[in-house]
Amino acid sequence: MLALRSLRAYQAATLLNGLMMPTPTPQPAFVLIRPQMGENIGAAARGMWNFGLDRMRIVDPRDGWPNQKAVAMASGAGRLLDEAQLFEDTGAAIADCDYVYATTARPRGLTKLVLTPEAAMQDARARIAAGQKVAVMFGPERSGMENDDIARANAIISVPVNPDFPSLTLAQCVLLTGYEWRREDVPTEGARTDAVGDWAQKIEIEKLGDHFEDRLQEAGFFFPEHKAENMKLNLRNLWSRLPLTRADVQMLHGMMRQMVRWKDK
Amino acid sequence: MLALRSLRAYQAATLLNGLMMPTPTPQPAFVLIRPQMGENIGAAARGMWNFGLDRMRIVDPRDGWPNQKAVAMASGAGRLLDEAQLFEDTGAAIADCDYVYATTARPRGLTKLVLTPEAAMQDARARIAAGQKVAVMFGPERSGMENDDIARANAIISVPVNPDFPSLTLAQCVLLTGYEWRREDVPTEGARTDAVGDWAQKIEIEKLGDHFEDRLQEAGFFFPEHKAENMKLNLRNLWSRLPLTRADVQMLHGMMRQMVRWKDK
Repeated sequence: MLALRSLRAYQAATLLNGLMMPTPTPQPAFVLIRPQMGENIGAAARGMWNFGLDRMRIVDPRDGWPNQKAVAMASGAGRLLDEAQLFEDTGAAIADCDYVYATTARPRGLTKLVLTPEAAMQDARARIAAGQKVAVMFGPERSGMENDDIARANAIISVPVNPDFPSLTLAQCVLLTGYEWRREDVPTEGARTDAVGDWAQKIEIEKLGDHFEDRLQEAGFFFPEHKAENMKLNLRNLWSRLPLTRADVQMLHGMMRQMVRWKDK
Repeated sequence: MLALRSLRAYQAATLLNGLMMPTPTPQPAFVLIRPQMGENIGAAARGMWNFGLDRMRIVDPRDGWPNQKAVAMASGAGRLLDEAQLFEDTGAAIADCDYVYATTARPRGLTKLVLTPEAAMQDARARIAAGQKVAVMFGPERSGMENDDIARANAIISVPVNPDFPSLTLAQCVLLTGYEWRREDVPTEGARTDAVGDWAQKIEIEKLGDHFEDRLQEAGFFFPEHKAENMKLNLRNLWSRLPLTRADVQMLHGMMRQMVRWKDK
């Protein structure tokens, strides 16, 4: 009887919490990839929180973690640093995401959808409304994003800067993307949601890429040697760019397995 | 006679210059009012030039002028500082302007039109197109704009920030306003595909489908029999649904050919 009362009390409390606590609004995660200076991580946190974003992920920060310079710079947005999720590599940081954007000034010849911050945040909002998990990746300050990381993205965000002076800092790039997220906060009429629904997650695309790369490697597909790296990059880029459902991914795995079975007969 | 020829030559040269030099696009002046730290003036110059704006005016900078810290921070946008116009007070700085905006986080009970950066830059563009001179005022870092200065403005620009964390730096405020100015400049379609996007034609997708279906048929992929038709349909549907380029199609053909070659070894 006590147990039952406790359960009811728990349920009541939970319900009350549900009523009183603001439900966290789904939002994109911002992923800082190999950031260098703590000051810039702190400034990025400020820029995010200025526009109500507080899901920060950090991949392999140069000066380790936590970082006192980041904390000093973040003043007022320090909570984002306390709650930031740390990852060893980009793949792990976006493993649970359905759709990922890469911010980069100059798409480097990869075939990839290129969006303005405005269009990207409209797109992100529609995806999040449809239940997808979304992330935006930001590269290291000095070098920008590497092709390996860009290849993991579904689309590119490119800020329409003055071509004579395109250099944006990490914090500026975060600020502008956050600004566009919030600007879109007023529900847009006719924002489309995808009906197909059951999209493959990043980790599933990653595994599909692994599977094909491994088998094709054995089959001698990546030839000649000096072109192999680029061929692999193009293949990874293809999988991440295509709008694949879970069923598509299963079929592609099945195809590859069957080709190997055929060979082994 | 010589004088006349010289004058004509001068006129011709001027005319030629007029034809060859790009006419400077009319744009709003950005007026920094009593800025404190040189670094912030330099960062503001960068943010302006990132979006193609280069008319800076400065009212009574705390540390005098020129300012070496401003120059150091402005790297790449130093020309804006060289060409900046210096004024003793706000009235003088905007004396030649037809319409002036004041950027401030919280309109302080003055009855004044309040605009988002987006609406303000749309308005500014229309005014400039109609021949008006337009300026945007930015207050000192620490205190923000004083009521005396706000009172001189025709309208207020207020960035839609998170009410729990509204503090924007001078440089951030300049950046976002400049971004909105340029965003209005860019053709409205937000999405564009990378130049590489040489999309495959329907007939090429059809042939890709044939190739995969034939080989997978031989490999025994379409099994069991009663599911075969549906599996083939799903596969055809996959290829036609995906946004494939010609290069993608070639790669997919190549993959399949290599798997067959591997088998035949």
